Amino acid sequence: MPRVRVVLVEPRHEGNVGAVARSMKNFDVNELVLVNPCPLGMEARQRAMHGLDILESAATVADFASAVKDADLIVGTSGIDTDSEKRFVRIAVRPRAFATKVQEVTGTVAIAFGREDFGLLEEELLRCDLLVTIPAADPYPILNMSHAVTVLLYELFTARRSKRTTRAMSGLEKERLHVAFADLLQATDYPAHKFTRTKIMFRRMVGRAVPSKWEFHALMGVLQRATKRIRRLEGKR
Amino acid sequence: MPRVRVVLVEPRHEGNVGAVARSMKNFDVNELVLVNPCPLGMEARQRAMHGLDILESAATVADFASAVKDADLIVGTSGIDTDSEKRFVRIAVRPRAFATKVQEVTGTVAIAFGREDFGLLEEELLRCDLLVTIPAADPYPILNMSHAVTVLLYELFTARRSKRTTRAMSGLEKERLHVAFADLLQATDYPAHKFTRTKIMFRRMVGRAVPSKWEFHALMGVLQRATKRIRRLEGKR
Repeated sequence: MPRVRVVLVEPRHEGNVGAVARSMKNFDVNELVLVNPCPLGMEARQRAMHGLDILESAATVADFASAVKDADLIVGTSGIDTDSEKRFVRIAVRPRAFATKVQEVTGTVAIAFGREDFGLLEEELLRCDLLVTIPAADPYPILNMSHAVTVLLYELFTARRSKRTTRAMSGLEKERLHVAFADLLQATDYPAHKFTRTKIMFRRMVGRAVPSKWEFHALMGVLQRATKRIRRLEGKR
Repeated sequence: MPRVRVVLVEPRHEGNVGAVARSMKNFDVNELVLVNPCPLGMEARQRAMHGLDILESAATVADFASAVKDADLIVGTSGIDTDSEKRFVRIAVRPRAFATKVQEVTGTVAIAFGREDFGLLEEELLRCDLLVTIPAADPYPILNMSHAVTVLLYELFTARRSKRTTRAMSGLEKERLHVAFADLLQATDYPAHKFTRTKIMFRRMVGRAVPSKWEFHALMGVLQRATKRIRRLEGKR
């Protein structure tokens, strides 16, 4: 995993800077570099919440070149997307592709976010190894700065650990569940001509729901309980 | 594609509400419902930017139930993730899985975001068909409200390209299914102390599976058939 540096270029609203620090804390990214920022006061500190340490240890530099110095990969963000070859400087990848690529980098990745009004300048975009654009609706595709940071750091964080820990039920348990379902159908004298397709319907639903072990046990309990009750009452007739 | 409604439950910072409206505009979602919000003034309007029309047309309601009324799928967001079966109410899916599932819904999907400090209350979580958690770093996993909205709407916007054609069951049908499940539990004298959590387990599984109309009818048939059979046999004793 590379080291990730967030670079904010000439931010004008201190609240945005604070919100970015918070988001960085949320997604475990600690290095913040500010290029010629607005003064940072109470609002920045308040919006940073538990990311205050990141805000306080942020480096301030005078220009873009200093901010991306030593970076092994320089990523620029752009709210303007294009496929036009005339505007090749702005041809960009999507956040997910960006996250995949970044995983492969060793060293430092600097992700630069432009000014709230003008974004990154052409000369800054030319310095970038990779451009990324967040897909958004045509009438208003420009995200707030901290929102853009959040989407990209979220994608990085997700790519970093794409495995879930919940224990899904095993294949064996799954089959036991389907036997229990078929038992219940039989106990209710389910019409023979619908038997197979109802079993398949249940199988597909379970397949989509991906039950946990706990859900497997709870559902098994309900099905078996109903079947047993019917059988016992029948025995008493 | 379903209609998406963003529900903010008792937001206390007007800036957050404005930032949410902006993000909604970015991702082409227009219906905002506020549950018992703080007063909205200049800061909310400024932060909304081009999403001002969404902010101005937001509906204000007194409670959670009114905000999710008529919704065919109710999604809750939780900053607390757990795999613990003791905290089953909070077992959640990831944003990407959430986005995929939402594509399959017809009708209205309400996505509820809780208070800045307390999130959604237990009783509100119990009303949700699906819970989603944004993965974040352990020391500080709680995202700013507008950041959380941005991540989920971004995922929805990204997923929108791949569309499904099956007609999903409606919210009304869904509730009938849950009544039928509860009826069966009762018919089997299901232990009272496990009643609620088994119902919620079933609700969440169905929420994840997004059954079609046909699956709804088939599953209803099985549940009602089992219940009726037990009741009839009991009557004959």
